[in-house]
Amino acid sequence: MGLFTRDIKSFDDLFVHTLQDIYYAENQIAKALPTMIDKATAPQLRKAFEAHLEETKNHIARVEQVFKMHGHEPKAVSCPAIDGIIKEANDVAKEIADKEVLDAALLASAQAVEHYEITRYGTLIAWAKQLGRADCAKMLQQNLDEEKSADKKLTMMAESKVNRIAA
Amino acid sequence: MGLFTRDIKSFDDLFVHTLQDIYYAENQIAKALPTMIDKATAPQLRKAFEAHLEETKNHIARVEQVFKMHGHEPKAVSCPAIDGIIKEANDVAKEIADKEVLDAALLASAQAVEHYEITRYGTLIAWAKQLGRADCAKMLQQNLDEEKSADKKLTMMAESKVNRIAA
Repeated sequence: MGLFTRDIKSFDDLFVHTLQDIYYAENQIAKALPTMIDKATAPQLRKAFEAHLEETKNHIARVEQVFKMHGHEPKAVSCPAIDGIIKEANDVAKEIADKEVLDAALLASAQAVEHYEITRYGTLIAWAKQLGRADCAKMLQQNLDEEKSADKKLTMMAESKVNRIAA
Repeated sequence: MGLFTRDIKSFDDLFVHTLQDIYYAENQIAKALPTMIDKATAPQLRKAFEAHLEETKNHIARVEQVFKMHGHEPKAVSCPAIDGIIKEANDVAKEIADKEVLDAALLASAQAVEHYEITRYGTLIAWAKQLGRADCAKMLQQNLDEEKSADKKLTMMAESKVNRIAA
């Protein structure tokens, strides 16, 4: 499904296009997470990734519902942004041998993924409201809340490592 | 400066690598913003982009200072994440003819850029503290604060368009 097979003519088209973008992104994240789980060493980090994989599956289902509520079939458009974020995560991970350094890098990569989702859901919610689709906005808000909460958990984990180096 | 020309062996290496990543990203953003300014129609949006271009130049200077404070020469590594985010912004913009729809898309793209920077600066600050570099953390915090404030401004602009469609 190429980006250039159709024009974005209206605000509604832009909303649907961005829904297709996050649909692609969530599916790519669901594919990337098992590798991140494998690579992670700290049990707390593995657990966080495992929990987020389950959440991601729910997010995909909710996005599919939003498509249907808005009269569209779920469809993905390629999303160079998430591809780039995941590529960078893999590139950096390949460069690291030390387990603790790798955990720190994986955690940072996961936060980059979360922030991409946070910005896209924020945008989609604002647009859904403008299109008079409070029902779609409500569904998307559930995904946004879970992404924010996942990011917060990761931030706490990143910061709880304070004095690790000094120790 | 290829990603694979050196290994990331220590936590300090990871910090420096991520600094090189955001240095590349900030420079790419500085290059991308003039095109976004040209494309934007709403004066408020153009103004926000112009202000952020000035901020971006200051961010680059601060990152250069952090490199020096930490005993390194400023250097960029390629960052597939920001390349993907900028590519997606350009791809979507090319698909849109309507000025108001284009403004909405540009605003959303700018927020995706902001969120990438927010996550990277958040990570860098946590790591700088762990490396005992409160001085670097403080400098990076100034960039983070400005990115968050820019994102907030864009969110307010996106949401202030409520009822645009209904009108």
